[in-house]
Amino acid sequence: MFFHKKELQFHAKPDKPDPVYAKQLQEILGGQFGEISVAMQYLFQGWNTRENEKYKDLIMDTGTEELGHIEMIATMIARLLDRAPVNEQEKASKDPVIGAIMGGMNPQHVIVSGLGAVPKDSTGVPWNAGYIIASGNLLADFRANLNAESQGRLQVARLYEMTDDRGVKEMLSFLLARDTMHQNQWIAAIKELEEKEGVVAPASVPPEYEATEFSHKLYNFSEGAESATGSWASGTAPDGAQFEYEDMPVIYGEKPKLEPAPPYIHGTPPHDPK
Amino acid sequence: MFFHKKELQFHAKPDKPDPVYAKQLQEILGGQFGEISVAMQYLFQGWNTRENEKYKDLIMDTGTEELGHIEMIATMIARLLDRAPVNEQEKASKDPVIGAIMGGMNPQHVIVSGLGAVPKDSTGVPWNAGYIIASGNLLADFRANLNAESQGRLQVARLYEMTDDRGVKEMLSFLLARDTMHQNQWIAAIKELEEKEGVVAPASVPPEYEATEFSHKLYNFSEGAESATGSWASGTAPDGAQFEYEDMPVIYGEKPKLEPAPPYIHGTPPHDPK
Amino acid sequence: MFFHKKELQFHAKPDKPDPVYAKQLQEILGGQFGEISVAMQYLFQGWNTRENEKYKDLIMDTGTEELGHIEMIATMIARLLDRAPVNEQEKASKDPVIGAIMGGMNPQHVIVSGLGAVPKDSTGVPWNAGYIIASGNLLADFRANLNAESQGRLQVARLYEMTDDRGVKEMLSFLLARDTMHQNQWIAAIKELEEKEGVVAPASVPPEYEATEFSHKLYNFSEGAESATGSWASGTAPDGAQFEYEDMPVIYGEKPKLEPAPPYIHGTPPHDPK
Amino acid sequence: MFFHKKELQFHAKPDKPDPVYAKQLQEILGGQFGEISVAMQYLFQGWNTRENEKYKDLIMDTGTEELGHIEMIATMIARLLDRAPVNEQEKASKDPVIGAIMGGMNPQHVIVSGLGAVPKDSTGVPWNAGYIIASGNLLADFRANLNAESQGRLQVARLYEMTDDRGVKEMLSFLLARDTMHQNQWIAAIKELEEKEGVVAPASVPPEYEATEFSHKLYNFSEGAESATGSWASGTAPDGAQFEYEDMPVIYGEKPKLEPAPPYIHGTPPHDPK
Amino acid sequence: MFFHKKELQFHAKPDKPDPVYAKQLQEILGGQFGEISVAMQYLFQGWNTRENEKYKDLIMDTGTEELGHIEMIATMIARLLDRAPVNEQEKASKDPVIGAIMGGMNPQHVIVSGLGAVPKDSTGVPWNAGYIIASGNLLADFRANLNAESQGRLQVARLYEMTDDRGVKEMLSFLLARDTMHQNQWIAAIKELEEKEGVVAPASVPPEYEATEFSHKLYNFSEGAESATGSWASGTAPDGAQFEYEDMPVIYGEKPKLEPAPPYIHGTPPHDPK
Amino acid sequence: MFFHKKELQFHAKPDKPDPVYAKQLQEILGGQFGEISVAMQYLFQGWNTRENEKYKDLIMDTGTEELGHIEMIATMIARLLDRAPVNEQEKASKDPVIGAIMGGMNPQHVIVSGLGAVPKDSTGVPWNAGYIIASGNLLADFRANLNAESQGRLQVARLYEMTDDRGVKEMLSFLLARDTMHQNQWIAAIKELEEKEGVVAPASVPPEYEATEFSHKLYNFSEGAESATGSWASGTAPDGAQFEYEDMPVIYGEKPKLEPAPPYIHGTPPHDPK
Repeated sequence: MFFHKKELQFHAKPDKPDPVYAKQLQEILGGQFGEISVAMQYLFQGWNTRENEKYKDLIMDTGTEELGHIEMIATMIARLLDRAPVNEQEKASKDPVIGAIMGGMNPQHVIVSGLGAVPKDSTGVPWNAGYIIASGNLLADFRANLNAESQGRLQVARLYEMTDDRGVKEMLSFLLARDTMHQNQWIAAIKELEEKEGVVAPASVPPEYEATEFSHKLYNFSEGAESATGSWASGTAPDGAQFEYEDMPVIYGEKPKLEPAPPYIHGTPPHDPK
Repeated sequence: MFFHKKELQFHAKPDKPDPVYAKQLQEILGGQFGEISVAMQYLFQGWNTRENEKYKDLIMDTGTEELGHIEMIATMIARLLDRAPVNEQEKASKDPVIGAIMGGMNPQHVIVSGLGAVPKDSTGVPWNAGYIIASGNLLADFRANLNAESQGRLQVARLYEMTDDRGVKEMLSFLLARDTMHQNQWIAAIKELEEKEGVVAPASVPPEYEATEFSHKLYNFSEGAESATGSWASGTAPDGAQFEYEDMPVIYGEKPKLEPAPPYIHGTPPHDPK
Repeated sequence: MFFHKKELQFHAKPDKPDPVYAKQLQEILGGQFGEISVAMQYLFQGWNTRENEKYKDLIMDTGTEELGHIEMIATMIARLLDRAPVNEQEKASKDPVIGAIMGGMNPQHVIVSGLGAVPKDSTGVPWNAGYIIASGNLLADFRANLNAESQGRLQVARLYEMTDDRGVKEMLSFLLARDTMHQNQWIAAIKELEEKEGVVAPASVPPEYEATEFSHKLYNFSEGAESATGSWASGTAPDGAQFEYEDMPVIYGEKPKLEPAPPYIHGTPPHDPK
Repeated sequence: MFFHKKELQFHAKPDKPDPVYAKQLQEILGGQFGEISVAMQYLFQGWNTRENEKYKDLIMDTGTEELGHIEMIATMIARLLDRAPVNEQEKASKDPVIGAIMGGMNPQHVIVSGLGAVPKDSTGVPWNAGYIIASGNLLADFRANLNAESQGRLQVARLYEMTDDRGVKEMLSFLLARDTMHQNQWIAAIKELEEKEGVVAPASVPPEYEATEFSHKLYNFSEGAESATGSWASGTAPDGAQFEYEDMPVIYGEKPKLEPAPPYIHGTPPHDPK
Repeated sequence: MFFHKKELQFHAKPDKPDPVYAKQLQEILGGQFGEISVAMQYLFQGWNTRENEKYKDLIMDTGTEELGHIEMIATMIARLLDRAPVNEQEKASKDPVIGAIMGGMNPQHVIVSGLGAVPKDSTGVPWNAGYIIASGNLLADFRANLNAESQGRLQVARLYEMTDDRGVKEMLSFLLARDTMHQNQWIAAIKELEEKEGVVAPASVPPEYEATEFSHKLYNFSEGAESATGSWASGTAPDGAQFEYEDMPVIYGEKPKLEPAPPYIHGTPPHDPK
Repeated sequence: MFFHKKELQFHAKPDKPDPVYAKQLQEILGGQFGEISVAMQYLFQGWNTRENEKYKDLIMDTGTEELGHIEMIATMIARLLDRAPVNEQEKASKDPVIGAIMGGMNPQHVIVSGLGAVPKDSTGVPWNAGYIIASGNLLADFRANLNAESQGRLQVARLYEMTDDRGVKEMLSFLLARDTMHQNQWIAAIKELEEKEGVVAPASVPPEYEATEFSHKLYNFSEGAESATGSWASGTAPDGAQFEYEDMPVIYGEKPKLEPAPPYIHGTPPHDPK
């Protein structure tokens, strides 16, 4: 159960409107690694966690915080859209700066949302739940979380470079910091789990399930041997076994030959010469 | 540029057809963490890599291998679909076992692909490129890759439990092994990069961009203090700073008050009482 | 900013597991009119509201409640999935009841989420933000909300009929009640706005924008005159004007004739005989 | 069965080409509340209507008209694209006005459709059937229709403000008028059904299905009491019962505790300290 | 502008309900090559046709007919869903035949549409406009149309095999016939255009745009020479030139070396050893 | 199984960066008829081919080549993005040419991919597998392939017109040539199959399945008789029968009357007057 406080977690006030930047900022609201993604990913992970209250609480702390980040960015976008040049007088002016702004805006910021944020990315693609994962295995999922916070912080850093508005930069500096925390926390939690379970997820697969003779070989499928010099090609692997490098990948399978389909499938009958 | 060899990398022959299992197996072909995802993710990462030939070659080795895994699983699915009970005679039999099979199959395996694999997940949702990432930052992307191989191996392990077909299990045992290798290799590559760059991605963000007073605080947004006892709430963080725990999150922002929209937006005019 | 309490708003405990019903229940979690839709729709409407604090607070009260409903249903689904028959022993049993269950389940409830809820509908389609609207015009949006609560309550009622599990029914009886409240509240709010603004949204369109001679005519485009007898075909319209019925719709336009495209478009050149 | 007449229902001729506006106009063709949405929504509602010929005929009259509106807008878009500046000479001119136009156009209007309309919204997202509803309950669906016509008219009004082309404005003035009619007709039809069935949809839910003690309470989940003063917080509700306001929402549920998953799910085993 | 007649173009009455088949039949209503696809594809092609009235009229004749086919199949689906076993009594019976039916149905046919057709495919994926094409080049588009009618007829043939209901088969026999006509007509129209324009689309590309030395070579990228024996590997090509076969594809490009990104992109800096 | 060579099949080097063109070029990488589509379509067709090794090898040759085309275009896009004007200094310049470039770029080329290609189309919509087909019937599928190569070549031709960069044009001239070859080869293969099987796909439908009296009639559903003069309206059809033209389409069906739904569906009860 959730409760809402009217105040934002942090300031979200630009120095001045900038509708083209509003479109770009949508990426970290409704994009693949935007705030909707992390909020929903963490909440679903929390709701699906079985026992393990310590991890569950960490997940729910973070997921609930991210709901507040959606709110901050949505508020910022609405303010960046204030006084966007959209009506016919401005259009008629033929000022190329205005023209570039009108061409560079997301038209849905006017037509659909009336100067409000939309749950979409910077090109207008609606957020969808195919972006997120909650697998029931926390080691796997914390790796997903570490990735999300890494990609998210990278995107915030790029957006930071793309503006000179101090109000926007102030909010982004807060988001950079929170992404730093969240990377740190997931790394710490991953370390805990790896110490308990081992580094290969899921840890619970019995050795007899696995064809272990193939578990530590790097195959050279892309011509050139640059990869042979890396720490993944020889020496001790993170799970304790030895890495091997196969310059010429051995073929273990055979040329597949599928049976013909029955006539009621209406596929192509065999036309091969005998 | 790619070249194709007719042989499969590994055997892909079930002991007997099983069309319901064919539907389930689609998850690791065309699902969020299926083989199309890893192949496309790695290849786009490789094509977008600037310099760093050692990493690029590793990525291309692995991406090219994954193309071959799509092929193996597609072949297995086609064979699991051989002699699927689909025509009217079988339907007319009213045998509940047949009925359950027909109800449990993916109807597109008959109607659309004519007993072939489809580039879709286990519920029939088409694969889409919103699943993948190639960001230009290798530390961030290798974390995405480690996640993908963790989720992928987890899904293979579950599918292993769901069948007693030895031929299917043999192929899955190979995939488990390759996912073990790929987890190991991405962990090794991440470790290399973290040693060079630090653990927080992207490493290149100057400290003055970040509101560092918020970079190591865990906020208790979900009532209950279970998370306060974890390694992420106190002590030294992975990046070397000190974690802090805030039981009652401080509010740094204010209640947002948006300006009214201009009349040509046709929003709701202010109806608040004065 | 949001805070989370660990308790659910209402009980979410089935009498016994039922994995096929878990799949069906996904509709009101991640479907077009599921709880994710209403939560996100209301929150975005609230964040985009300019002035009008009374309405904004109502929207935020309701949106925040809906976050808790997502949580309730996700919890119920996880419990319905307990002990789902998924592994090979059960499969080998050839029991047609088990077979029907395995065929009728969502395979992702095992393979992807490990017995947890997914942010998808009852056929496995991921939730997407194309389902929701926050337009900046509250009369329009409250009509969207009334629709969402009407469709939502209809779906809950149908799901109520599809189970005999008392625990599930108890939760659904709570959801039916909340949807009754939400329909009532949006009707009341719509009435307030219609009294201030008039019934046609948006109220702010000046009459000179509109070709008002076409604003109250019902055109008989589908042969048969049953619709001519309704309250929408004659008499006073809700906005005070008079409805008219046109049995044979007049054509106001002309046959369109498009200009040929320039050669660099590589369209089909005119092949019409002169 | 449908028949087509070559004439458009109304004029669709701009005074001059405007490829940036063509992109914006796509919103009411292929967007969430564009003409494809209302046409398909009404037609599916009509085809699924069981008995109730009067309503069915009204739905089919309107759905068939909307097919003609798709045609009008598609024609307008094709004409707005005439002579769009797309080839290299224009590009080479370095005229910033031309540059802004080329940047603000939808590139698919050249590359994909060759100066024709596309079934997509103003950002290029393809229309999809997740936008529409045909539930089999007409009260619920007419509320969906009233919403669609309200959002649609709002979008047309905004597009009207964004151009000074008299030909475009003339077509939009017709669409504004038709949306006025359609709002009026659905309001009238809703009123008829509400008088027969009551205001809460679906009317057929027996009282014993519903936990009626929760059916009229407004819960204050978002801090602040502005919403307590509305017509939805006290007094008589539209369905005749009394509204109540709960300043501090009571918790009826409990902290959920999920059972551990069986080992073959490969989730995270319990790591909580005893 | 369109007009609707209440009668169906052809009978659409099954002998008896069959809700599992209703789900399967959705493929040719709302699937990739279902009736919505052909209707929308043809209508958009027609609206975008510039001059060429003869072809435009043919397209509009066919697109309008397809609207009537959507209606026929939607009606058939609604009738196949009559008396679907969905409520708790039936569920409680534990009859495995009933269980298989409930597992094999599309749950949205009850929960969402209330025993009506949905604009989705046989796995529940909503129809989307990414399936269709209207390019402004009629030779290209007629090839798309011939493909759509070929895939469509193939799917109808498979569905014909999957039922023993005479009413359903009667409707399918009509659809098979119409798809035969539509294949014939598009082949005839393609032939006309090829005679005027040549076989390579678009015909209007000047020879100096094309690196013609690569225009007739088959490259052996997949090991094995079976393809070398086909009519595409030697002899005269359809456009009059000579086919050639290259057993060992020549490499015309070079190993790509991308420039490093500027620091403000926050990509991975060069870590290659000097 | 696949192997990768580092060299590109052909040069992919622009004379100078052009980030707006990079966005446009995405269409033939990740659009409906881009290189991902043809690669995946051909590979899935090859993997699903049963017997018919000659055709299978041709398909695999071509699909493997297309993988290399994805790589070429991805490389070209990365280079077109070099030194894109994205950071604040440039923004602050208020140069309208820079403004138009920033407005006309895909913001994800900076924020998401860090100056790399994305698997999306020219408007940012992610590639999805709903674009492709592999049906098990080669005649049907080769028609899909001919369409894909026709649409693809058309799009390349348009992109050729939209640039004056010689490096880009050189790559496009190669792609035009390969699309010429691929159109030729699919036409040749179609001809082979049509000679063996007949022109109507699938050839295996027995005449008793089809209501052949409707198999050669053109119905005049769109007012106007222009289409009556075509080669599809009279004379011998491609399959050898005679075309017929029906000026006034006969109605073979009846007005559908659906049964009322059972009460537990909660649809609208019959309100028609007796």
